[in-house]
Amino acid sequence: MNGTNHAADALFILLGAIMILAMHAGFAFLELGTVRKKNQVNALVKILADFAVSTIAYFFIGYGISYGVDFFARADVLAARNGFELVKFFFLLTFAAAIPAIISGGIAERAKFHPQLIATALLVGLVYPLFEGIAWNQRFGIQAALKLAFGAEFRDFAGSVVVHAVGGWIALPAVLLLGARRGRYGRNGAIAAHPPSSIPFLALGAWILAVGWFGFNVMSAQTLDKMNGLVAVNSLMAMVGGTLAALVLGKNDPGFTYNGPLAGLVAVCAGSDLMHPLGALATGVIAGGVFGLKSLGGIGGVSFAAQLAGTALGVVIALAGGVLVYGLLKKTMGLRLDPEQEFQGADLSIHHISSTPERESNW
Amino acid sequence: MNGTNHAADALFILLGAIMILAMHAGFAFLELGTVRKKNQVNALVKILADFAVSTIAYFFIGYGISYGVDFFARADVLAARNGFELVKFFFLLTFAAAIPAIISGGIAERAKFHPQLIATALLVGLVYPLFEGIAWNQRFGIQAALKLAFGAEFRDFAGSVVVHAVGGWIALPAVLLLGARRGRYGRNGAIAAHPPSSIPFLALGAWILAVGWFGFNVMSAQTLDKMNGLVAVNSLMAMVGGTLAALVLGKNDPGFTYNGPLAGLVAVCAGSDLMHPLGALATGVIAGGVFGLKSLGGIGGVSFAAQLAGTALGVVIALAGGVLVYGLLKKTMGLRLDPEQEFQGADLSIHHISSTPERESNW
Amino acid sequence: MNGTNHAADALFILLGAIMILAMHAGFAFLELGTVRKKNQVNALVKILADFAVSTIAYFFIGYGISYGVDFFARADVLAARNGFELVKFFFLLTFAAAIPAIISGGIAERAKFHPQLIATALLVGLVYPLFEGIAWNQRFGIQAALKLAFGAEFRDFAGSVVVHAVGGWIALPAVLLLGARRGRYGRNGAIAAHPPSSIPFLALGAWILAVGWFGFNVMSAQTLDKMNGLVAVNSLMAMVGGTLAALVLGKNDPGFTYNGPLAGLVAVCAGSDLMHPLGALATGVIAGGVFGLKSLGGIGGVSFAAQLAGTALGVVIALAGGVLVYGLLKKTMGLRLDPEQEFQGADLSIHHISSTPERESNW
Repeated sequence: MNGTNHAADALFILLGAIMILAMHAGFAFLELGTVRKKNQVNALVKILADFAVSTIAYFFIGYGISYGVDFFARADVLAARNGFELVKFFFLLTFAAAIPAIISGGIAERAKFHPQLIATALLVGLVYPLFEGIAWNQRFGIQAALKLAFGAEFRDFAGSVVVHAVGGWIALPAVLLLGARRGRYGRNGAIAAHPPSSIPFLALGAWILAVGWFGFNVMSAQTLDKMNGLVAVNSLMAMVGGTLAALVLGKNDPGFTYNGPLAGLVAVCAGSDLMHPLGALATGVIAGGVFGLKSLGGIGGVSFAAQLAGTALGVVIALAGGVLVYGLLKKTMGLRLDPEQEFQGADLSIHHISSTPERESNW
Repeated sequence: MNGTNHAADALFILLGAIMILAMHAGFAFLELGTVRKKNQVNALVKILADFAVSTIAYFFIGYGISYGVDFFARADVLAARNGFELVKFFFLLTFAAAIPAIISGGIAERAKFHPQLIATALLVGLVYPLFEGIAWNQRFGIQAALKLAFGAEFRDFAGSVVVHAVGGWIALPAVLLLGARRGRYGRNGAIAAHPPSSIPFLALGAWILAVGWFGFNVMSAQTLDKMNGLVAVNSLMAMVGGTLAALVLGKNDPGFTYNGPLAGLVAVCAGSDLMHPLGALATGVIAGGVFGLKSLGGIGGVSFAAQLAGTALGVVIALAGGVLVYGLLKKTMGLRLDPEQEFQGADLSIHHISSTPERESNW
Repeated sequence: MNGTNHAADALFILLGAIMILAMHAGFAFLELGTVRKKNQVNALVKILADFAVSTIAYFFIGYGISYGVDFFARADVLAARNGFELVKFFFLLTFAAAIPAIISGGIAERAKFHPQLIATALLVGLVYPLFEGIAWNQRFGIQAALKLAFGAEFRDFAGSVVVHAVGGWIALPAVLLLGARRGRYGRNGAIAAHPPSSIPFLALGAWILAVGWFGFNVMSAQTLDKMNGLVAVNSLMAMVGGTLAALVLGKNDPGFTYNGPLAGLVAVCAGSDLMHPLGALATGVIAGGVFGLKSLGGIGGVSFAAQLAGTALGVVIALAGGVLVYGLLKKTMGLRLDPEQEFQGADLSIHHISSTPERESNW
């Protein structure tokens, strides 16, 4: 009986891990479709390599920082209770690996390849686990202090702050240290946006992310008995609200519309276990309108002050970590492609091949 | 113990909902690959927007009509029993939202965008739930009357009639009121078919639909204890039969072949819990041969007369609903793009961007 | 209670079957992206048709050879125990159907279409089940003999040998009998590789395969109580190790990098229930370096001699089966397209359409 329950829990959280693993394909295709064609291959290789480096960094270092757990025991010890602890690691790894995937879009089309892999190792191995341990594992007594001060802990059910805001705020110094795309700002300050290279692949990425997000949110319960359909339907309503708001505000623009459901889903993570579906719908509508303000969150916890303090701490750690990691890399290896490489595109410069090479060679 | 069982049921039906949510991406890519390149973006945005509008219409109106249930209670009430009732809504919503997705292919490349969103709201909010409530929730005593008359109720296990036939028969008046694509019929009555714009995306859509269909059929059991592998293998055999028939009849044509598994899966839904796998194989073979006749169904119920009467009622409601909704919209807003817009394509006319805009601007 | 457990087992193995069904889409897109554009459609149709033919051959013949089970009983008998036996068939079918999918890449761009469908029927109906029955169902007393001789049976938890090596070694005579692609070897013996036609679709295929592989490995436990997270994390580590090795050795080449995780996952199947995650990581690193040697396996069983003997037997059966089937077909129907057809491409020769036909006709 207990055996079956451990197995059911392990299956439950494994399904979440698999769905979020698939989301990394979504990140890759969303970026591929959004960047210019000369940078498509780089988006694909970067996301896959980032996931691999994240796994190594989190397995050997990061997970120990956040949860004090390592996996150097004998295999038969690890396999106890249907290997639940291992699947839980897999699940939380897919969260951690979202940090470089979130940053990836911000630094696209101009960042060097290898410095970013080192940044990934440092961020997933050190910076992210620091705040993850504070928020989700009572590290350093900060949750206890918040409870003492405000009567409630900082709550973040599915990582609105721990994952999405932290990722977004790490990206800020990275983008500033890197500088804008060439030709992005004209002499008169006007912004010159380039169009996406492929709406179909952009949409494919968004669909994969939206579907996988239900694993992100629902399986955050971590055991089957705590699973709740409220989380699923709140995610649905936020996704739908974000879609409709983006459709209206973006005047049917496909890139804008397809980022709408994602904005709604980012916003609803934190409170998806506490909100009413109508609140989730409103959250999604607002998020579809103010996409970009990832730190807004969908605060539905008990103490506003505790939420504010916890979020502020996350932002501070993210900014400090981002400045340190990317500042160090800029000084030592440099962050940015040469102008010529950037002009040529990351595909040919770094990967020596374009995204549809045979067509170029034969046609 | 009961807690775990509710959780297992909620997980079971949630997996179905997620798989059918993914099918909507499949609808989008199947249409994108089938239409001309100038209408690809429109296919993507239409399906996503239709899903969002369907959710709103079904949540606030439709679900009350078919099941008499609303979700305006407090969140903690909704979360009872692991939120099973909410996940069940999510699952049935993904069925309801298939109605506009089925219609979408029929009206592609020439329909206006906003009238179709209004049609979606009316169809998913009012027309579909009417027959859904009759077939699956004993509304209006019609099932009781059928049982009295024929000794058995109208059975439709996974929506061959409730979803696929109703969607198809609503599409008929929509297509008639809209008129054919320009250049579709020559002066001498010959049909001029345009080739698909992208076989890879067409096939991607078909694969997503075929895989997701197992959620559609298997999770129609709604609770884990009623799940049966017979449904899965009957679906498999129908899919395979449809594929082989389409391969032979279509003489290796990829578009035809990739619609084969879908035809088989449409046909098998109704009786997939009752048929023998060999019967399912035959059903698929036939369906792969007569694709298009969506209303054929895979009748495997107890009373042929009750199936006929139920199906006829579904067709009548679908036709009447389609005539009313699309007739009204044609009178008031108009259904069809201007000839110039249609010539230019829905992508540029409605969304002001093509599917690979960067290539056109830079190359 | 027992009812629920049967249902949970049926759901568990069904999820595996669905994930591996999706992997067949992955095979299709991996091949589509790798071959030249003139052979993309053929990759798509071939994989779908192979899956359909495999289902028929395995349902009517193969499954009886390997497990002595058929499904000609009445439907209500088949539906007993939540139809677990049927879902188990579905799961094992998706393994069997991987055989032609593995071969498909090796014979791409030059093989005739219909002879390959016949080969698929013979291989999945007769050759594969022969070794499957020996390895996994004690057929012919060979496992007993190995145990007597070496103290342990031949172990292959998730098909490193039974599926991947057998598929690879059947492909060898097929490729030899077929001959190389035209222009593949220059007069001086230099190899002329053509570039892939589409890195995005190649990567899409690899992502689908990598994600689905977790169903392949984890659900090989076949019942929920035997599920173990160790298998999942060993798969993860092998995937990551393969990725990193391929990234380094391939010097950022996207095609090489995206085959890395697959090489790691192939290698880890056999011992994924016994290895330590660090061993799995090393296995993946090595496999990412020696990709192509599919028969290497990730041997982690008890007796090296038994593993060697079992693997050797698998290789012999695969080679003999491959020589027989493809030799016979070469004599009777011929295996290879005419030079003109090959030059024109399999898409136009066999399917009378290119992968983006509308663009060619209108632009």
